[in-house]
Amino acid sequence: MKLGLIGGTGPEGKGLGYRFAIAGHEVIIGSRRPERAAEAASEVAEHASAATVTGAANLDAAREADVVLLTVPYTAQAATLPDLRAALEGKIVISTAVPLSFEGGKPAMLAVPEGSAAEQAAALLPGARVVAAFQNLGAAKLWKAGLSLDQDVIVCADDAEAKSQVMSLAEQIEGVRAVDGGPLTAAHYVEGITALLVNVNKRYKKTTGVRIAGL
Amino acid sequence: MKLGLIGGTGPEGKGLGYRFAIAGHEVIIGSRRPERAAEAASEVAEHASAATVTGAANLDAAREADVVLLTVPYTAQAATLPDLRAALEGKIVISTAVPLSFEGGKPAMLAVPEGSAAEQAAALLPGARVVAAFQNLGAAKLWKAGLSLDQDVIVCADDAEAKSQVMSLAEQIEGVRAVDGGPLTAAHYVEGITALLVNVNKRYKKTTGVRIAGL
Repeated sequence: MKLGLIGGTGPEGKGLGYRFAIAGHEVIIGSRRPERAAEAASEVAEHASAATVTGAANLDAAREADVVLLTVPYTAQAATLPDLRAALEGKIVISTAVPLSFEGGKPAMLAVPEGSAAEQAAALLPGARVVAAFQNLGAAKLWKAGLSLDQDVIVCADDAEAKSQVMSLAEQIEGVRAVDGGPLTAAHYVEGITALLVNVNKRYKKTTGVRIAGL
Repeated sequence: MKLGLIGGTGPEGKGLGYRFAIAGHEVIIGSRRPERAAEAASEVAEHASAATVTGAANLDAAREADVVLLTVPYTAQAATLPDLRAALEGKIVISTAVPLSFEGGKPAMLAVPEGSAAEQAAALLPGARVVAAFQNLGAAKLWKAGLSLDQDVIVCADDAEAKSQVMSLAEQIEGVRAVDGGPLTAAHYVEGITALLVNVNKRYKKTTGVRIAGL
């Protein structure tokens, strides 16, 4: 499958790109600046060795990909997505963003009028099949070769078929179990878990994730 | 230790009362109506066999207890707590509530002006040492004799010493690990997890909980 990462040059984009490249997917790292995309792509390609990873302008990544992951920071989302609307029409678009601010060193959720970063993405991309996932996976763990993630990816969407596809995709990452978290409105709670994990990581000096117990 | 459960006659109050009774604590089930409290107390005492469980009016439970758990529904909190203010002065008060509505069969968080049920409790009880915990434990599992909970209790508070005491208390429930979730403002995220678990439970027909992975 061709996976496009919009704003994929940061740690989260590269980490997910790496994991999907080693799972055998064709990965297109998108950026506002194609030369930065190309740089990040060759970094990911080298890390994944021999996998097909290329860089492109965000719009080209959106056009060429079968499934798109949004790895732009939440605060850049409203400026980035409208230009991609036509290209993403009918496609599965995965929202990974968390509306988190670190003002004064303290993590705090920003108020999102739409309810969550994922619902904002859906509002900005009315023709896309938006699915929320991967918000709780730490970039450093994704990037670490051979590391089993050993955590859950909670997947929320209103489109059942798109949700199911993203759950399968998530489970191609070693040590990940996908859990159906309900409708897209529930993405708010999953995004909030990341804010909580930031507290826990700071307190325990670990990179933590979440598991649903009792399944 | 003497533990008081304010509004403890419902499934959550009885479930927690049972677990703390079998851990050897003296448990006082509080209610607006002392006769209902006495009924619930004898039910818990029988279930726990031989443990010291008594019923009392909420105000008496608040006065007599060393540590108090708020197990009134969120929507009754604002009407219940002001009368207990003086009795709870200086005491550890554990907020277990989740501001959840089930309108139209769909779980949704109610907007809480203070940020969370726990922060509302703190605002209503300015002299108390409010700690948020136990929001994600299902009442049915608590009540089930011999069942190991096998999940985490995420504890949030601004008072470090009170938080640490509540973490120890939580780990007296079989199969519970306490995790420091940060300041009281983080209770919002923990309360949100309950809304998410309601979705997961419905989808998978299980009673689920949460674990922090990677600690």
